[in-house]
Amino acid sequence: MIKITLPDGAVREYEAGASAFDVAKSISEGLARKVLAANINGEVWDLHRPINADASLKLLTWDDTDGKSTFWHSSAHLMAEAVEAAFPGVKFWVGPAIEKGFYYDMDLGDRKITEEDLLALEKKMNQLARQKNPYIRKAMSKADAIQYFTEKGDEYKLDLLTNLTDGEITFYTQGGFTDLCRGPHIPNTGFIKAIKLTSVAGAYWKGDEKNKQLTRVYGVTFPEQKELDEYLLMLEEAKKRDHRKLGKELGIYTMDDNVGPGLILWMPNGTVIIEELEKLAKQTENAAGYKRVVTPHIAKESMYLTSGHLPYYADSMFPPMEMDGEKYYLKAMNCPHHHKIFDAEQRSYKDLPYRIAEYGTCYRYEQSGELFGLMRVRCLHMNDAHIYCSKEQFAQEFKAVNDMYLKYFKIFGIEKYVMRLSLHDPEKLGQKYVNEPELWLQTEELVRNVLIETGVPFVEVKGEGAFYGPKIDVQIWSAIGREFTLATNQVDFAQSRSFKLSFANQNNEPEVPLIIHRAPLGTHERFIGFLLEHYAGKFPTWLAPLQVKILPISDKFMDYANKVKQALTDAEVRVEIDDRSEKIGKKIRDTELARVPYMLVIGEKEMNEGKVSIRRQGKGDLGAKSVDEFVAEISQEIKDRVAE
Amino acid sequence: MIKITLPDGAVREYEAGASAFDVAKSISEGLARKVLAANINGEVWDLHRPINADASLKLLTWDDTDGKSTFWHSSAHLMAEAVEAAFPGVKFWVGPAIEKGFYYDMDLGDRKITEEDLLALEKKMNQLARQKNPYIRKAMSKADAIQYFTEKGDEYKLDLLTNLTDGEITFYTQGGFTDLCRGPHIPNTGFIKAIKLTSVAGAYWKGDEKNKQLTRVYGVTFPEQKELDEYLLMLEEAKKRDHRKLGKELGIYTMDDNVGPGLILWMPNGTVIIEELEKLAKQTENAAGYKRVVTPHIAKESMYLTSGHLPYYADSMFPPMEMDGEKYYLKAMNCPHHHKIFDAEQRSYKDLPYRIAEYGTCYRYEQSGELFGLMRVRCLHMNDAHIYCSKEQFAQEFKAVNDMYLKYFKIFGIEKYVMRLSLHDPEKLGQKYVNEPELWLQTEELVRNVLIETGVPFVEVKGEGAFYGPKIDVQIWSAIGREFTLATNQVDFAQSRSFKLSFANQNNEPEVPLIIHRAPLGTHERFIGFLLEHYAGKFPTWLAPLQVKILPISDKFMDYANKVKQALTDAEVRVEIDDRSEKIGKKIRDTELARVPYMLVIGEKEMNEGKVSIRRQGKGDLGAKSVDEFVAEISQEIKDRVAE
Repeated sequence: MIKITLPDGAVREYEAGASAFDVAKSISEGLARKVLAANINGEVWDLHRPINADASLKLLTWDDTDGKSTFWHSSAHLMAEAVEAAFPGVKFWVGPAIEKGFYYDMDLGDRKITEEDLLALEKKMNQLARQKNPYIRKAMSKADAIQYFTEKGDEYKLDLLTNLTDGEITFYTQGGFTDLCRGPHIPNTGFIKAIKLTSVAGAYWKGDEKNKQLTRVYGVTFPEQKELDEYLLMLEEAKKRDHRKLGKELGIYTMDDNVGPGLILWMPNGTVIIEELEKLAKQTENAAGYKRVVTPHIAKESMYLTSGHLPYYADSMFPPMEMDGEKYYLKAMNCPHHHKIFDAEQRSYKDLPYRIAEYGTCYRYEQSGELFGLMRVRCLHMNDAHIYCSKEQFAQEFKAVNDMYLKYFKIFGIEKYVMRLSLHDPEKLGQKYVNEPELWLQTEELVRNVLIETGVPFVEVKGEGAFYGPKIDVQIWSAIGREFTLATNQVDFAQSRSFKLSFANQNNEPEVPLIIHRAPLGTHERFIGFLLEHYAGKFPTWLAPLQVKILPISDKFMDYANKVKQALTDAEVRVEIDDRSEKIGKKIRDTELARVPYMLVIGEKEMNEGKVSIRRQGKGDLGAKSVDEFVAEISQEIKDRVAE
Repeated sequence: MIKITLPDGAVREYEAGASAFDVAKSISEGLARKVLAANINGEVWDLHRPINADASLKLLTWDDTDGKSTFWHSSAHLMAEAVEAAFPGVKFWVGPAIEKGFYYDMDLGDRKITEEDLLALEKKMNQLARQKNPYIRKAMSKADAIQYFTEKGDEYKLDLLTNLTDGEITFYTQGGFTDLCRGPHIPNTGFIKAIKLTSVAGAYWKGDEKNKQLTRVYGVTFPEQKELDEYLLMLEEAKKRDHRKLGKELGIYTMDDNVGPGLILWMPNGTVIIEELEKLAKQTENAAGYKRVVTPHIAKESMYLTSGHLPYYADSMFPPMEMDGEKYYLKAMNCPHHHKIFDAEQRSYKDLPYRIAEYGTCYRYEQSGELFGLMRVRCLHMNDAHIYCSKEQFAQEFKAVNDMYLKYFKIFGIEKYVMRLSLHDPEKLGQKYVNEPELWLQTEELVRNVLIETGVPFVEVKGEGAFYGPKIDVQIWSAIGREFTLATNQVDFAQSRSFKLSFANQNNEPEVPLIIHRAPLGTHERFIGFLLEHYAGKFPTWLAPLQVKILPISDKFMDYANKVKQALTDAEVRVEIDDRSEKIGKKIRDTELARVPYMLVIGEKEMNEGKVSIRRQGKGDLGAKSVDEFVAEISQEIKDRVAE
């Protein structure tokens, strides 16, 4: 008998050679039908693979990231089977699962895959899926494997085999298709109920542009047709909400060849949003006892040697400028400059927690091929801050930061989010992680408790902490269900030492502070890109670049329109008059299209009664109100940052 | 007879060989006693030098910059005479007038000049001055001049002579001292009534550190003792108000070796001031129809080749970063990026004037020896903006900018200022100045009219305009009478062409806009340095980093103190509590020293009556008021930006 430990700590006994499927069935038949694979002692296994010794076990379904990956990897094999049927002689390179779906790289010779081919392949895949062909694992000797692919004439798989160790090589077969594969796979193709091949692209073999270009076919599959339908709808909606398209249409940002790739020029409308975000950050941080600082964008090489960013992080930094016999670097992060401000004056426990915030601009070198709209840029603005505190103050400070995240989520109507708590790996202390085993455990425990206490959804990931302490990455989902990695919140007990920071504690002894790095809105670039999609460009009034457009029915009402404009301007509302000689219908349509929250229609009746007729973007006519009443209402809406 | 044209256009006739002194006397004896030299056809001449042909003439007194320079240059000769008497064998290099006073570089061999020497020299100079020795000009052949200094054994003057042309060499003698000198000089030493030798420094011969170090003696002189007294008082006050001293004491800024020289780290208190300045700029500009933008700090080389900053301005820029086969430069000015924003969308006459402002950060390379506190830095922040307008809109836009300057002067209590209008030189069109003779004349006339119309004090300077148009430099004087060059306001009709900017005019034809460059607060660095001196660190309440300090008489009143604090915080007043267990007298003294505008003393009586006892920094007790009353009053004071 073997002992199987389940995630809740329960231990069950099974015959040696039982599979994860047997375990699932012993728990519930319904569960057994849903399970795709299992995590055995930290490794993902085929569901039916025999277990011969005591083990910890976690059943993986579609709801688990590893479950999805296995599902999509198996879908890649299914696609390969269909491709081989349609294109005899095709040779395959690799076919991994990706963040959403899978791809397979293949050598089709001179043949091209068309849109029609994709539809035909989908059809074939559906047929093969319905056959419920099992994925069969078979261990192979290296010699046999080489012989198999030599006979098949597949130089790509032979190339893969050169790096594999004899005794660790497996083949997987489903239906008529056999592949060199480490696995794992789902039990059979019948789990795959909905299939969409999304696109075809070129991809150099091994990513090297000197090599032959292969054909990469992307696809995504689901265990239910409904999920695929939702996903396609989301994709369509995401296309409409594409931040690059909206960014241009709404005058948010631009780029220029003479400035350089990945360097955003914020147009007036985008700058309004940046400034509103900064205003929110300042108000929030003032209330939370932060002070603000301004630091240069460059520093000498010595600064980054101290911080440890050089030489390790050099690839992600801009190249140096050589001046006066020194190397200067554009800063890729604000922390070292902030440490210098902490260090500029003698600090005592009375000064702590010392919280300093900056509207910081950093420069990071991203490969030009990786640059993407506002999502991946080379110049990033962020609402950054560092908190220097004692060990005793840490938990409270960390909780306050966490609460700040939640406050922001509420303001922006972010309903789905997960905090990903990245921990150290005790085996890598002193190498990947600063060698402070107790501090790691202490702070990890403190952080975990704060997350539990505040009831925030979170997952723990071992071995993904920063060098200098545990970190939390925040994942958020936009209104249409797309996932974004937003912000990080990091604990740091190493940089204080590198920079020799200290404060005089209550016994007047020097003590090293802990540092919290935090940027709850992430970078303005990515966050505004997210918001463009999230709101489909229909920003809530407080964020809208233009908040009110006054639409006079004719020139006769321009004087009155100007009076209304003045009243709104005095209340610091962003307002313009549409003074074109256009029909009111056209003015309304254009203003709707420009996604201005409020339109004030002004004609004879409104002027005589000292009123305005109000239209809300996307909602239509809201009736007439006096100017004072409207000014008061919109001012309150802006002040309260009403979500919509 | 010769015709002499006076500055007011009047023409007078004199015998050929008459001097400027004769002209002065013919106008008024009183004037003749005050005149130091004269500007003859654009060149400064000795007062008694004979004029042999028709000429334009301006008499120069102490009130003229050139009059002062002549006075101080003559004082340098006077000092040299005294030095030669005290240190026989001394050799002299050069002795120019400087912004305030003069210096002379000399080779004293192994001898050093002490404080006592300076006093003795001053005494000697006074004696020599009272002798009213005339400065006598004598033309010399180069051969005679070389012989003279060869005999004297003065290799420095011989070195100077190598670069001079025979026939243009003059000597000046006063009393027992003769010098190789181009002149001009004042009539005699008797004009010099007050003398102060201010300091001694080392100076490498010809500024090259490989050469011998000479001794540089600095001095300043005046035509009246009273002026010297005032000047010394000002110096003493300026020392107390030194922005570097106050900047450290008040936690305004710091610098760090690992960041680099000339790179300011703004501490929390300095950042408050920056943000208040920016808030003022934003409010002012919003009301004036500006929009705001944010641009990166770098651009490709091609951008600065287009703008013309490269290669001509390369020495003042930071060195390039080489990346992806391109050179990137830190921006030394914001204009090119703003032009790109103008150009990012199709513009029509309806969009003009297009005014875009940015809290811009630029990087300029200054020699490390030139760096000085906040006054000369390498990273500069500025409230920058560019206005794109049609020729017809120019005058109005320029006037609006001018009015904005005046508005700011009022807010900051800047009572003395001069605008220096720098014009083109028609002879250098196409070389130093863009070749648009009509546009130069037109815009210069428009600018001049605006200055006259607004009654602003201004001077015109020919041949100092920017390459691309006339400019106005603004000189301001601090409360203690020190002069600062603050801001510039420039007209530009060249960059629009370089960047191919255009807008569709009313006939739907492309037209090139005029550009106004303006930064009325100059750089934040220099302006805050100025304000530190101007206010002696006692900022008006709206600018003060900390506006109110609450001083509880004992711990018993902490709850009430916190309530008062909350009321002020709610009103967005910057407030802290002095919760130390110190006597109230000490708390008041420390808060006075920290230059916090308001102190609220809180004890039994105040708590029972719901009041606060108010002390104003530097003014003492203002009596007790209810909390609400105080909050309302200080809020109004901040909102109105009351000067003091």
